[in-house]
Amino acid sequence: MASRQQNDHSVLKGVYRYLDKHFEKYIEILRQLCQQPSVSAQGVGIAETATLVRNLLESIGVTTRVIDAGGFPVVYGETDGESPRTLAFYNHYDVQPADPLDQWDYEPFSAETHGKRMFGRGVADNKGNIVARIAAVDAFKKVCGKPPLNIKFVIEGEEEIGSPHLDKFAEDNRRLAAADGYIWEYAQTDFRERPQIRLGQKGMLYVELHSHTASQQLHSSWGGIVPNAAWRLLWAIAKLKGENEKICIPGFYDRVRPLSKQDIEMLARLDFGEAAWKEQFEIDQYLLDFSMNELLEAYFYRPTCTVCGLEGGYTGPGQKTVLPNSALAKLDFRLVPDQDPDEILELLEQHLADCGFADIEVKVCSRKPAGRTPPNDPLVTAAIDAAKSVYGKRPQIYPTSAGSGPMAILCHKYGIPAVSVGLGYWGSNTHAPNENIRLEDFSKGMRHIAAIMYLYADISSH
Amino acid sequence: MASRQQNDHSVLKGVYRYLDKHFEKYIEILRQLCQQPSVSAQGVGIAETATLVRNLLESIGVTTRVIDAGGFPVVYGETDGESPRTLAFYNHYDVQPADPLDQWDYEPFSAETHGKRMFGRGVADNKGNIVARIAAVDAFKKVCGKPPLNIKFVIEGEEEIGSPHLDKFAEDNRRLAAADGYIWEYAQTDFRERPQIRLGQKGMLYVELHSHTASQQLHSSWGGIVPNAAWRLLWAIAKLKGENEKICIPGFYDRVRPLSKQDIEMLARLDFGEAAWKEQFEIDQYLLDFSMNELLEAYFYRPTCTVCGLEGGYTGPGQKTVLPNSALAKLDFRLVPDQDPDEILELLEQHLADCGFADIEVKVCSRKPAGRTPPNDPLVTAAIDAAKSVYGKRPQIYPTSAGSGPMAILCHKYGIPAVSVGLGYWGSNTHAPNENIRLEDFSKGMRHIAAIMYLYADISSH
Repeated sequence: MASRQQNDHSVLKGVYRYLDKHFEKYIEILRQLCQQPSVSAQGVGIAETATLVRNLLESIGVTTRVIDAGGFPVVYGETDGESPRTLAFYNHYDVQPADPLDQWDYEPFSAETHGKRMFGRGVADNKGNIVARIAAVDAFKKVCGKPPLNIKFVIEGEEEIGSPHLDKFAEDNRRLAAADGYIWEYAQTDFRERPQIRLGQKGMLYVELHSHTASQQLHSSWGGIVPNAAWRLLWAIAKLKGENEKICIPGFYDRVRPLSKQDIEMLARLDFGEAAWKEQFEIDQYLLDFSMNELLEAYFYRPTCTVCGLEGGYTGPGQKTVLPNSALAKLDFRLVPDQDPDEILELLEQHLADCGFADIEVKVCSRKPAGRTPPNDPLVTAAIDAAKSVYGKRPQIYPTSAGSGPMAILCHKYGIPAVSVGLGYWGSNTHAPNENIRLEDFSKGMRHIAAIMYLYADISSH
Repeated sequence: MASRQQNDHSVLKGVYRYLDKHFEKYIEILRQLCQQPSVSAQGVGIAETATLVRNLLESIGVTTRVIDAGGFPVVYGETDGESPRTLAFYNHYDVQPADPLDQWDYEPFSAETHGKRMFGRGVADNKGNIVARIAAVDAFKKVCGKPPLNIKFVIEGEEEIGSPHLDKFAEDNRRLAAADGYIWEYAQTDFRERPQIRLGQKGMLYVELHSHTASQQLHSSWGGIVPNAAWRLLWAIAKLKGENEKICIPGFYDRVRPLSKQDIEMLARLDFGEAAWKEQFEIDQYLLDFSMNELLEAYFYRPTCTVCGLEGGYTGPGQKTVLPNSALAKLDFRLVPDQDPDEILELLEQHLADCGFADIEVKVCSRKPAGRTPPNDPLVTAAIDAAKSVYGKRPQIYPTSAGSGPMAILCHKYGIPAVSVGLGYWGSNTHAPNENIRLEDFSKGMRHIAAIMYLYADISSH
C-alpha cells in the first residue's frame, strides 16, 4: 500500500481536485436530501427519499434496484471498478424524529448553512455520509473512468427503528450483499479532532418485562395482602444484576471471550477522553471506581444489562395511594461476539422462573448478534492509512462501537469485514436537536472514502 | 342502653317518622350539595361549597364558624343538647376529581336519580353522610326541641388531598374540637348488606424516592460504565421489602403491638368476604398463601410498604436505548398505632444510607399516625346497638380501616374515641366513575345517626 500511495499519488490528487472543484454541487445534493424528511419511526417521507437516493445513484452511473425485504425498501446499487475486489457501503436514508422541535435553532428539514456548518436532521446521521460516498465514486468515474474497485451501495430505510428486516435482506440477496469488505455508515472525530475508526458493533437483546397482578389498580390499603405488580417487577429485575454490576443470569458470561493480547494492545493505544466525558455527563465517577483498563474493557469488551425504562402506578404530582396492578420495564442487553441473543433470552427466562418470577412476561423487541472485525484485516489497514493521509493524524481505533446495529447480520455472519468511518464530529448532535456537520468535515469525509477505495483496491494480502 | 332503647323507643320512632315525612326535602338538599363541585385537588368550588354547608347548618339552628387553619376552611358548627355529653361529626365537603369523565353514565355534578339511586361525585363520599347527619340533628330539634346530647360538626375541605392542615386545626382549636366521641365520615354496607363499623385508621408515611445520576439521559451504550438512575432506584427499593413481604428496615416493627386476646376475638367474629374480593380483583391468591388468620392480621394489624408508582427512562411504544439519568418511585407506608411517622422516616433514611444508597433523595409527601378506638368503648357499643336496631343485622366490626386518614390527629391523640359509620354500600364506587348511593341507604343512614345520638346520650358507664 505504501508503495501505491507513493507511486500513484497523482491519481488520488486528481480525485481530490475534482471533489474540491465540485464541492458546491455535492453540498446542494446534500441539502436536497436533508430537506426531504424520512422519519422511519413515523413512516414519513420514506418512498420519496428512497426514490431520491436511487436517482442520485443512477445520476452517477450506478445500476440500482429497490429491494423490498418486508419493510421500508433497501436502495441497492453497484458499479464496476478496475480491480476484481468489491467494496460495499452500508448506509441508511432514514433519520430520527426531529423532536423536540422547540430546541432547534433552525428548522430541522431546511438544511441551512450557518458559520460553515450545515444544520438539519440526518445531515450527520446519515445523509452526509451517503452523499460523501456517492461523491467519491462520482469523482473516480469522472477522473479515471471507473472506480479503482467494484462498488456496492446498501442503503436501508429502517436503521433508526432497529433494522428489523435487514437480516432477511441479507439472507435473500446473498449475491448482491456479498463484498470483500463494508464501510459502515457513521463515525466522528473526537474532542481532539482525531478521526474514529470503529471495528464492530455490540449485539442487542431488547426486552420488555411485564408484571400483571390484579384486574384493576387498587387502593393501596390492600398492600398488606394483595400482590403488587410494581413490587413483583422490582424484585424480578433486582435478580438480573447486582450492585457489583455483575449480571446474575447463570451462563450469561459463558461465551464472552477473554481479552487477547491484541485486544489489550488496542486498548493501550486508545485515548478515550474519560475525563472529558465525565465532565460532560456531570458524574463524579464511573461505575465501581474502575481503573482505566477496567473502564475500557467494560465499555468495549463486556456485555451490559441496562434498565432503559420503568413504569407503573401513579407518578403524577403529589400523593396518590394506589396499588399498581401492572408494571413495565424495558431492558437492553448489549452483547459481545459469540453471545447468541436467542440463547441469552432463554437464559433470562429460565433465570426468572428459577427465581420464582415465572409470572413476569418477557416480550422481545429486538435481537441482534455482535460482530467485530480483526484489527489486522486489510480493510482496517486501508481505513487507517487513508485517515492518516487525509486528516494528518493517527485515527483512534475503537475495537467496536459500544452501540449496537446490524453490522454482524450483514457482514460478520458471512465472514465479511466491516469498519465504521464517517464525517461527523464531537459536536454533531446526532439524534438530538441542532444536528449538524462542519463543511470542512464533509470535504475530508469524501477524501477519506476516496483514499480507502484507492488503497483497498490493490491490497496484495487479500 | 337496652333499658333506654325499650323505655323511650317512642322518642326515636317520632324522629324516624319526621325523617320519613321530610325525606324529599333532605334529598333535595343532598342534590343541591352534590350539584356544587368541590374538588380540592383542583381548588374548584371550595369557597362556594363551604358557604353552602355553613348555610345548611345555620338553617337547622346550628351555630357555625368558618375556620382557616392554613388551607381550605373547616366549617365548624355546634348546638346544645339535653345531656352534658358531646358527640361530634367529622366529615368533609371536598370530593375527588370526577375523571375519567367518559366512564360516567350521568353527568357527575348533576346528581341525577335513577332506579332509586342518586349518582354524582361525592354523593357517597362524603356529602350523603353530611346531609344524613344534618337531617338527624334537624329531626331531633323539630321533634324534641333539641338533640339528646350536644352536637358538633367538623367538616373540612381537604380530606381528599390528605388533610394537610387538620392537625393545625386540632391544635389551635382544642376547645372547639373537644368531644366525648366522634362519628367519622364514611362506611358502607358489605356484600351481604351488613353495615360496617370501623374503629380506627392506619397511619401513613408517603414518600418519593428520587435517583439522579448524570446531567442528561444518555445513550444506553454507556450502560457498562456510567451509573444508571433506574438501577440505583431499583436496588434501593429492593432493600426495603423482601419477597417474603417482610419490611427490612431495622427497627420498623419495634413498636408494632402484638395482637391482644380482644383483637383475636374481633378477627374471629369478622366475615371478611375474602373469596368475593379475590374474585373481584381477579387474583389467584392473596400474598404468601396466607391462612385466614394471617390474612386478617396482615390487613388490619400490620404495617405495609407499597410501591405506588415507578417512573424512569423511556416507556413509550417500542424500543429506545437510553440510560436514565433520573428515576422516581412513590411509596406509602401504612402504619399501625404506636409507629411514629417521623421515626419511621428516620429509620428509612438511615437504612438507605447503611445499604449504600445515601444518593437516593427522600421527599416526604405526608405523614400521619394511626389510631384505634377500643372495641369496648361506649361509643362503639352505641354504634353497634343502633346499627342492629336500624339495619336488623349484626354489623361487621372492623378493628380499623386498612386505609389512612386524620382520625388520630383529631381524636386519638387527644384521647377521644371515634368510629366510622356511613350510608354507602358495596356498589357505591367511591373515588370512581358512577359514584352513587341507594336512597334506602340514605334513609337508614339518617336513622342510624339518630339512634347513635339517642343511645350515646345516656350511656351510664362514661
